[in-house]
Parts: sequence; structure tokens; C-alpha cells
Amino acid sequence: MSSFNRITAEQLTQIAAIVGDVNTSTTQADIDLHARDQSHHAAHPAEVVIFPTAAQQVADVLKLANEARIPVTPWGVGTGLEGNSIPVYGGILMSFERMARIVEVYADDFQVTVQPGIGHRDLNAELARYGLFYPPDPGANATVGGMLANNAAGIRTVKYGASKDNILRMQVALADGRLIHVGSRSVKQAAGYDLLHLFVGSEGTLGVITEATLKLMPVPAHVSAVVAAFPSVESAVETVVAVRGSGLDPAALELVDAAHAVMLSQSDGVELSEHPHVFMEFHAAHEATLNDGLEMVREICEEMGAVSFRATTDTAERKRLWHARHHSYEIMVRSHPDKQFFIMDVAVPISAYPELIDYVETIKAERDITAYLIGHAGDGNIHVEFPYTPGETYDKAMAANHDIVMKALALGGTATGEHGVGIGKAKYMPIEHGDALDVMRVIKQSLDPNGILNPGKVFPE
Amino acid sequence: MSSFNRITAEQLTQIAAIVGDVNTSTTQADIDLHARDQSHHAAHPAEVVIFPTAAQQVADVLKLANEARIPVTPWGVGTGLEGNSIPVYGGILMSFERMARIVEVYADDFQVTVQPGIGHRDLNAELARYGLFYPPDPGANATVGGMLANNAAGIRTVKYGASKDNILRMQVALADGRLIHVGSRSVKQAAGYDLLHLFVGSEGTLGVITEATLKLMPVPAHVSAVVAAFPSVESAVETVVAVRGSGLDPAALELVDAAHAVMLSQSDGVELSEHPHVFMEFHAAHEATLNDGLEMVREICEEMGAVSFRATTDTAERKRLWHARHHSYEIMVRSHPDKQFFIMDVAVPISAYPELIDYVETIKAERDITAYLIGHAGDGNIHVEFPYTPGETYDKAMAANHDIVMKALALGGTATGEHGVGIGKAKYMPIEHGDALDVMRVIKQSLDPNGILNPGKVFPE
Repeated sequence: MSSFNRITAEQLTQIAAIVGDVNTSTTQADIDLHARDQSHHAAHPAEVVIFPTAAQQVADVLKLANEARIPVTPWGVGTGLEGNSIPVYGGILMSFERMARIVEVYADDFQVTVQPGIGHRDLNAELARYGLFYPPDPGANATVGGMLANNAAGIRTVKYGASKDNILRMQVALADGRLIHVGSRSVKQAAGYDLLHLFVGSEGTLGVITEATLKLMPVPAHVSAVVAAFPSVESAVETVVAVRGSGLDPAALELVDAAHAVMLSQSDGVELSEHPHVFMEFHAAHEATLNDGLEMVREICEEMGAVSFRATTDTAERKRLWHARHHSYEIMVRSHPDKQFFIMDVAVPISAYPELIDYVETIKAERDITAYLIGHAGDGNIHVEFPYTPGETYDKAMAANHDIVMKALALGGTATGEHGVGIGKAKYMPIEHGDALDVMRVIKQSLDPNGILNPGKVFPE
Repeated sequence: MSSFNRITAEQLTQIAAIVGDVNTSTTQADIDLHARDQSHHAAHPAEVVIFPTAAQQVADVLKLANEARIPVTPWGVGTGLEGNSIPVYGGILMSFERMARIVEVYADDFQVTVQPGIGHRDLNAELARYGLFYPPDPGANATVGGMLANNAAGIRTVKYGASKDNILRMQVALADGRLIHVGSRSVKQAAGYDLLHLFVGSEGTLGVITEATLKLMPVPAHVSAVVAAFPSVESAVETVVAVRGSGLDPAALELVDAAHAVMLSQSDGVELSEHPHVFMEFHAAHEATLNDGLEMVREICEEMGAVSFRATTDTAERKRLWHARHHSYEIMVRSHPDKQFFIMDVAVPISAYPELIDYVETIKAERDITAYLIGHAGDGNIHVEFPYTPGETYDKAMAANHDIVMKALALGGTATGEHGVGIGKAKYMPIEHGDALDVMRVIKQSLDPNGILNPGKVFPE
């Protein structure tokens, strides 16, 4: 790791001159508010928090920081789950709170250009009037810039893809202060290297996203929901595979394990039996399509031995059916009032999903760990949610986390499906990538030779 | 550009020792067969043509070539349209003809691992038994490796995406002789930099693809086709936008201009009136869905003033309806027996499509050029096909090509939607990318410091 300098009083004045005094803060409140994300990783104070209001300000601050060897950590809204935006080397915390505008809606192109600080929910509230929406939804109201930087995904990825699949063009500020454009508003482009996807998911370590043109989808005219319970995880996962293979193109395909179903039932009064449950959602242009589809889904579930099957095309009923899944995190938090929570994330090819889940269930049982398994099953992605007590059960949760990551890697999967590397997954990168990690390092070195961009992330130190 | 060395007799022996004598050829026939692709660009002979049979051989040859500064040009089956695989600096032509195996089918994962030399049609013939298919289809039976290297797309991209959207993992041989893996068989991955997409579309200038794991889709149970004619290009394109916005998720959405419709009718006896035509295809799990969809499409077309509308869910009838579009290239060639053909490729945001097409039609009329416009309208992509006579109308076609590329760039589009940069589009890269081209150069320099990988492509010289 490069050695960094502390910010001098003169540099602080220069930074404030770039972004404006009102957008520069060294108050303890602002430092504290930007010292940690929603993960279990330790807080670390930045030296200054700035709120740029224009791309050129971002570029100018990077240029200054690069020349002075001051670390810069970009910040969306702090919903990261692996310490991705914790300023572990201090320096400048660059919040995008004041770059949160919709720049232009291209309704005919199903595109929108936004500043990086806009929340995806806020964006979708505005887009509703055009009958369009931006599909990636990681749960929290993360910013678009943060989602792109971490390649966030969520429950609709099985149909609509992750952040990397819903982006066309970005403006990026480089460490040396240049502003470049990558990608194209043309949905097809075969013109040179795909820098767009190099910056997406690079967690602010190669450049800082200052503007993004997103792909939008028409809001589905009709939506249906299915909740089915199965005698075993195997039959639940076989159902997932069969539904994917049916051509029905589900918009969500989620697994909740039996322990989680019980917890949700006890804490929230939802009607879930002690079985693995599969939650599904389908989007279609006609209601008839949905009804035909639900008939096929019912047949598949019955063949797989479903012990219960509920389906609806009614909006209110759908919301009721999905309530437990949509609010599973809050329900878990409410039912463990004295705990802190750690949510881990791995993904595997779907054929390895039953083995991974079996492994998680075995670890839970053998080590007497309270943990809940929730999975974006259609994508082979799982989260294990560990309620823990710091100083008591934290180490046990961390040990389980480590073993599950190693298992996922052994199964041909990845250390992180959608939370990103941040701090917590950096040590797994050599195992996951082998010599390809050296190629990543070479690229990092060529674009950020002084290592000022979000240091301490992605690469093991 | 780096300076290269000619291959010495000793090096030729070393190369033959790596790949085997039977896989090493310096015959004039093999040199000639690999001197040009299907483009209008001039042929250039390699010094040796090799046919490696394993990834390690590819890596070992690259290591030798890198140390000796000998150019290496990868070759799929030579269907490129911009000189992408012409060995313009001589050296080693590396054909993947003998690395054309299916390595493994992961039916439950909807994935297949292949060697790069397999043709996508040959692959799909094998995959049919699993009820799965690999969607990208550029027309010719291009190899999967060539398609990935050029980010090939085709008529089904509007639903299934381009090559870059249907790839999960690749093995790549680097210039220094290392073999790395990029991407993951997990469909979700947020673990470090997206090297997968950096190599896809890099046209063999950053590394050589030696194996690829592709995403597959279930073969659609039901397919429908629509052919509609419109009074103007504007109403045809408005129809395209409306169909995309309807949520009907078309699998193909193609435009043929009035001149092309006339040529197709006269040469092939197909029933196309002298109007712009839109060809559509829809895929669904049930026939009922298709019928509902066709009703919606008919309403949209009528609203847009369609002068004719034909639709079917019958396979034979569908093939008849689409005959003219699927065979448009052969029909054009047959109807111009004394000509050579040059096919250009640009893409723009769909809102700019009418202006681009109007510009093409104006150029054709004002300059008295024979040319046919065919478009992947759903993607904003067009091809203009120029029949020309070398030494006579070639320059006129090239001048029109240049002007159309510049117009597409001015409209916020790209110099190439799916043919790649190759030789012909390199000069437009500074205009399309600005300073981002310097970032591409830095990456090229860091991965291929001696510039041996497919020199003369992508970057202007």
C-alpha cells in the first residue's frame, strides 16, 4: 500500500475553494456519520467530508488529492455491507448527497441520465410518470452511484440483471483529474474496450462515477405472486431450476429456509409453515399470460411435492403474500432486539445450490449458531443473516462466514454475488482469481499509480 | 506501433514443436485462406498458420512470440466484416479450427463450456437435445471465440443481448504466456474488476480466448412472427418504439427500407410492397401468450397506420414470412451478380433512429448510390449494404460510409454496433471515445507491452 499524507490546512482551504465552504465539513457529526456503513466493519474517521455539486469539482479534488497523496473515499448513502465506503486511511470522504439530480429522461430510449447520488427508489418514484423503472433493487434506498460502484443486484436480478446489466454510459473522474465518458447511449456498441464494465463494480478504486445513463424497463402492466412450501430444500431448489427452465421468465425467485420461515411466522404472524419456502413473482404485459403462467407454475410445484401453494394476480393479496419476504430483515431485527446483525453473501452455479445450502444448515446445527438463510435462488445467490453479540458470538459468526465463503469457492462460486469485496472479502480474492488478480493489480496501478482511490478495498493488504 | 521481427527458421521449429508439425502450415493455400475475412479490406499473408489443439499450446506460442516480438493474430472462421482477423503485420496466424469441442454441458445451470473454435450453429445443433440454445446469432456460422472477441450480436439481441450479455467465464492466454480465468460460473459476481468484459470485444488485442462458459436459454416453446408495412420510416420506427414500450419483449424487431423491400420482391418473388417493413418475432412459453401478444401488436401497428399486417404462430408460415429478411443478403448478392459487397454498421439511441435513416436515404438519393438499408431497429442498429465495383463505385461507397459513421457519432451513437473496430473503424475511435481512448491504450500497454496481439486493429496508427 502506498503511503499517504494527512491533509494540511492549506490543502483544506484549496479543497473548500473547489467545492465551496458550505460543501466542506470537518464537524465531528459529519465525520461520524461517514465513518462506517451498515456492515460489522470498524468505523474509521475521514479528515474532511466534502459534498461536491458538479463533476468538475470531483475531478479537481481528485487531481489535488493525487498530487498530494491524500486518500479519497466515495460515499453514496452508506448502505454497504462489506465496509466498501469506510475511509480506512482517512483523507477525503466524498459524499454524493448533493449530486442527486435527474439530468435527463430519454423516455423514447428507455434511458435516464442521473447524477450518482440519487437513490434508486427516489429515481423510480420520478420515473413512474413515464411508465418506466430502473430494475436493480438491493433492498435499501442505495444511491445509483453506490450500486454501480458495487455492482449491486437484488431480488429482480433473475429477470432484469444486476447493476452491470442496466447501465449504458458513465462519466468517470480519474485519479489524475481527467473526466472521461465510457460506454454509449447506443444499446449496442462494439467499439473498443469495454471500460464501462471495468469501472462498474470497481468500488471506486479505479475512478469515481460522476454521471450515469441507465437502461430502463417498461413498468409491467400485470404482476403475479406465488408462495409455495416444500418438504425439503432439494425439492425447493429443483422447483427453482424447473421454473427457470420453463421459459416463464420469473422476475423474482427467492428461497427462505425452514428456520427463517418459523422465525417469520412467530415474529410477524405470517402464515408460513416450518418448511423451505419459494417466493416467486412474474411480470407480464397481459393478465391472461400471468394466469396461463400460474397454471404452469402450479403444475411444476405439485410435481416437486409442494406442501402448500398460494398464487395471486391481485395487488393487495400479492403484497400480503410477499410481506414476509420483503420485510424479512426488519422482522429479524425486531425479533432479536439485543443483537447486532451481520449479513453474508456468496453465490454459486445453481446446480451447486443444494450442496451449499445443505452445508450452511449443517454448520448452523453442528455449531449451534442462530442464523437465517435467505436466497436469491434463481441466481444461486444466498445471504446468511447472523444475529450476534459483540465480544460473544461475533467470532463464531465470522468463522461460519469464512467456512461458507470457502465452500462457495470450492463449488465454483464467488466470494460475493452482490455485496462487493470491500474490506471483508479482500482476503478471498487470490483464491477466487488466481493470476487474474495480478491483471487487476496492473490495471489498478496504471489508472491510480498513487493508490489514492478508496484504499484498503478489493485487494488484500 | 512496435517493430516486429520476422519468424526465423529456428522459431518456426519451436512453434511446430509446441503445436505439432501437423498443426503448423506454411503452404500457400493455408496462407491465402487466412489472409482476409469477408470484408472489403486488403488481404495480407501471415508467415505461418498454426492450429493449436490445447490452451497451453496457445499460451506457449504467445510466450515465444512475445519474447521474439512476432505478431499473433487469432482467427475463428473468417466471417469478420472489418478486417478484424487479417494478419496485417504478418507473423503467426492462430486458427482455432482444431479447438472446436464442447467441453461440458451444465444443463441444470443453463451453461455450456466450449473451446473457442466451435461455430454457434454447430453448438446450437448439439444443445437442442437439452432444450437449450445460445442466443447470439450474427448470421454467418461464426465461431464462439470470434463472436466473443468482437462482441457480435445479431437479430435476437433486442431480447437476449449481445455476446457480452451471454458469457459467464473465460480462460484467456495473456501475451506473456500466462493462462488466467476471468468471470465465474456463478451468474452473479461482485468480486473485483470485471476482466471478463474487458476481454470480450477486445478483438484479440489484450489476450486470446482459449475457453468460454456461455449462458444458455430454454428453447422457446412457441414462436410467432409479424411482418407489417408502413407508409413512412417514421411510422415504422414509432411502431418499433411502441412495441418495445409495450412490455411484449420482442425477440426480433427488424426494419427493411422501401428500396430493400422492392429489391427483395423483384429478386425473390416475396410479397413486399414498396414501403418500409418491420419484421418481428416473439418467443413465449404458451401459445395463448403469443396470441394475446399478437392482438396487442396488431393494435399498435394499426394505430401507427400500417398499410399491411401479417402475423402467424405457425412454424411453416413463420419461415415463409421471414424468408426475405433471413435471406436478404443472399438475395441481394444474387440480384447483383457482377458486384462486390460492403456492409457497414453503426448504431444510435433509438430516438435518433429516424434521423439517421433519413440521412442514409438522403445520401443515397443525392449521390445516386445503390444501397440497401436493413436494421436491427429494436437496438438502434443499422447496416447499409453497398454493392460496388472495385475501382469504380468503391470510393463512393466508402465516402458514404464515412459520412454515415460521422452522422451516427453526432447523434450520440457508435461507429460500430456489432461488427467491431478491426481496421476500418479504428480512425473513429478518438472521436467516439476522447480521453477514454488513452485509458484503453494504457490498458493495452500494460497487458501487451510489445504489442504482439493482433496489431493494427482497434487503435488508429
